[in-house]
Amino acid sequence: MKRTLVATGLALALGAGYSLSAFAQAKPEVLVKQRQAAMTLFGKYWGPLGAMAAGKAPYNAETVKRNAAYLSVLDKMPWDGFSPETKGTSAKTAALPAIWSEPDKFKQAQERLQNEVSKLVQVSASGDEAAVKAQLGATGKACGGCHENFREKQ
Amino acid sequence: MKRTLVATGLALALGAGYSLSAFAQAKPEVLVKQRQAAMTLFGKYWGPLGAMAAGKAPYNAETVKRNAAYLSVLDKMPWDGFSPETKGTSAKTAALPAIWSEPDKFKQAQERLQNEVSKLVQVSASGDEAAVKAQLGATGKACGGCHENFREKQ
Repeated sequence: MKRTLVATGLALALGAGYSLSAFAQAKPEVLVKQRQAAMTLFGKYWGPLGAMAAGKAPYNAETVKRNAAYLSVLDKMPWDGFSPETKGTSAKTAALPAIWSEPDKFKQAQERLQNEVSKLVQVSASGDEAAVKAQLGATGKACGGCHENFREKQ
Repeated sequence: MKRTLVATGLALALGAGYSLSAFAQAKPEVLVKQRQAAMTLFGKYWGPLGAMAAGKAPYNAETVKRNAAYLSVLDKMPWDGFSPETKGTSAKTAALPAIWSEPDKFKQAQERLQNEVSKLVQVSASGDEAAVKAQLGATGKACGGCHENFREKQ
């Protein structure tokens, strides 16, 4: 019993560092790290799909289905990390000022991505290679459209 | 038309850097970055729940439901990043050698976490505060159990 309580205390403590930032004002550096983490994972699961669309990897319907489902959750995660207090952060970031000077356009770009990924989830259920590849193209354009306007050229 | 083709080409190119690593052998540094990204996001969405469980933040049934759903996807993402070639990486990591010397135990710890998060998703649908808090405790213990054995003390 005592052991259980100690273990619970430890486990809760592990969350404590995050919890403060989640309820009080999160530190800008933490927000930047979290939004970049979402982009990193987006890249992890988009990468194989982009390669299929470009004909650099064989089409795999199961991978498309799984990754599309993951992307449809990940595409909700970066945006609250772009809060205004991160604008002047010292953290290394490629975020452009247009994110904060053109919030409506930035929001539209997010919704476009979410919309295209959502269609990808639907289309991937059919397994129809041509339809999936067309939708991969549309999804890739949604990534690129946002990067072009709101991310420093890499 | 030409513009569309250019845009598609750009979008596909954005995925190209990742695609190579996704199909060929991913570089160990990339794998480490991706697995840490998954842990960072796990922290982002676990944080508020840990705070609720510890009584440091008011209980919010909607936040629990949403974050539990996110966590149930994120808890699939770190593990393939712990492939053996990352063992000797120069990237900064707190991963302990036990990950590779005790793979069965490591796998069990992953499954325990996934199992507890899955129960949290179910319980959070009910909105029953006491049941949710009990399950948050069990989930936190699953985090801590793995960290204790497989992650360097922070």
